[in-house]
Amino acid sequence: MSSAIRPDRTGVLSAPDDAGGFGDRLAIRVADRRSQIVLGLDPDPARLWPRALELAGGADGGPAERAARAVAAHCRLVLDAAAAQCVAVKPQVACFERLGAPGWSALREVVADAGERGLIVIADGKRGDIDISAKAYGQAFFGATPTPFGDVPGLGVDALTVNPLLGRDSLVPLVDAAREHGGGLLLLVRTSNPGAAEIQDQELAGGGSVSEALARIVAELGRPGVGPAGLADIGAVTGATAPERLESLRAAMPHAVMLLPGIGAQGASGRDLAPAFVPGPAGGLVSASRAIVYAHERGGEPAVCARREAARLRELVWGLYA
Amino acid sequence: MSSAIRPDRTGVLSAPDDAGGFGDRLAIRVADRRSQIVLGLDPDPARLWPRALELAGGADGGPAERAARAVAAHCRLVLDAAAAQCVAVKPQVACFERLGAPGWSALREVVADAGERGLIVIADGKRGDIDISAKAYGQAFFGATPTPFGDVPGLGVDALTVNPLLGRDSLVPLVDAAREHGGGLLLLVRTSNPGAAEIQDQELAGGGSVSEALARIVAELGRPGVGPAGLADIGAVTGATAPERLESLRAAMPHAVMLLPGIGAQGASGRDLAPAFVPGPAGGLVSASRAIVYAHERGGEPAVCARREAARLRELVWGLYA
Repeated sequence: MSSAIRPDRTGVLSAPDDAGGFGDRLAIRVADRRSQIVLGLDPDPARLWPRALELAGGADGGPAERAARAVAAHCRLVLDAAAAQCVAVKPQVACFERLGAPGWSALREVVADAGERGLIVIADGKRGDIDISAKAYGQAFFGATPTPFGDVPGLGVDALTVNPLLGRDSLVPLVDAAREHGGGLLLLVRTSNPGAAEIQDQELAGGGSVSEALARIVAELGRPGVGPAGLADIGAVTGATAPERLESLRAAMPHAVMLLPGIGAQGASGRDLAPAFVPGPAGGLVSASRAIVYAHERGGEPAVCARREAARLRELVWGLYA
Repeated sequence: MSSAIRPDRTGVLSAPDDAGGFGDRLAIRVADRRSQIVLGLDPDPARLWPRALELAGGADGGPAERAARAVAAHCRLVLDAAAAQCVAVKPQVACFERLGAPGWSALREVVADAGERGLIVIADGKRGDIDISAKAYGQAFFGATPTPFGDVPGLGVDALTVNPLLGRDSLVPLVDAAREHGGGLLLLVRTSNPGAAEIQDQELAGGGSVSEALARIVAELGRPGVGPAGLADIGAVTGATAPERLESLRAAMPHAVMLLPGIGAQGASGRDLAPAFVPGPAGGLVSASRAIVYAHERGGEPAVCARREAARLRELVWGLYA
């Protein structure tokens, strides 16, 4: 796990909390760091901090290798600036995957770096498949792959975002892999984009919406993983852009950690998120990426602006919901 | 594109068909190769053909590098054996991703190899995300990523399986990326696993099932991409395990290519798939992986058994539906 007991370079004291399940570990981290902010990392090689390009300027190799070096340097700088204000980091897998093998190496580096800083690492991969493929994703993100040449370790993240359209049998191998390693899953229940309405908000003939049906799956899969802190290891992505839906979703999954994207760049405000925090301060995680990473584009030095914006968000949410 | 005009090592004549959209290109390939079989590649490093382990035995590096070499060798051997019986190949991305950066390099190699053999390459990634992340997946699979160090080419596949739970705005960037490069998407509409019933078969209050709502999205997104062959560039995954649903799904998306997993290892038979083939022989693609790759486990030499099983499936489907 990326969250093994290691020196915490951010200066925030982290408890040696690896004994518990994902919900307990998260609750302890949130309390220690007094933060519910998840720092999203979706690096665009064409929009990196200038300092990252300088640092990676001398890297060897072709465009993929050099871009991946610059992306890794950028993420390190962003973490240097903002990690102390956050409880977790959420690398967007697509942004690394598009750089091929060097991108995947950069992702592994970012995951390890964030773990060493005491951050919970949530891979935003929105994976979902059946049978042996679901098992393979479990190995890729949480476990290891047995081979005749020895085990190949996966990324070792703390949590993975998962698309549940394929139903429970597609989720069980991922639940098993996450739980075995003290990790968690965050299932897409109600995403933050306008198009989410098209399928997720549809009302079912039997009553309730598709999102509410997904929320019931989250609750059932998470039931064996509820720890003393009252949080399960199976949580949900519930966009902050549809706060009017949070109450019924919270009722359907009382112990789920809710990841709340859509504050900041996607436009929602920090208000009206109260249902997320019913189980406690760690019941809701507020995700922000571009609002923090590109804060300097309104004027200022990237690291200073990122730190300031992350601190502002942390205080806003902590003030409302701790 | 992996399908640029190149020598076809399988000995099957391929037309220089890159001018058209995905549907037309597929229709020409199916007619040329007299095959609707999609060879699924989901390599398990613990279950590779023995010859692949011999070939990769001397590879340098750690377990990941050596396993990825063996996986690439295995896929090459499987293609040597069965490619001539197939029209397309479908690498399962999870099985490469779990080997990290070396796995991603092996995937790139397999994609290029299959393209050189005249096969249509369908990346089975079941990706789906919003906004800049959807665009990043488009760059990873179809396009290229602009960076200050030059463009980084993506995998260059012909098609990608996509999870549409996030709605139309999540799909448009992928549609654009695929269409720009003459590629296609296959959206999950009704998957082949038992759990598919849980969400996809739910009846909506407004009438029809979730799958039928997804099928309407497939039809609408594909409408501008219907070519002279009568096939769109946006198709659907519609499991052969629920043949009773194919008729209504075909009615909802008359021009969609239907990818039909679930024959063979997942247990369905080749019968009752007629609705898939209404637009012509290329309207249905029958996917088989373990049934071909592990045919020798019932006794025999791997390559001989794989070729025989692929040929049997090709004749079965071609006989019924060409």
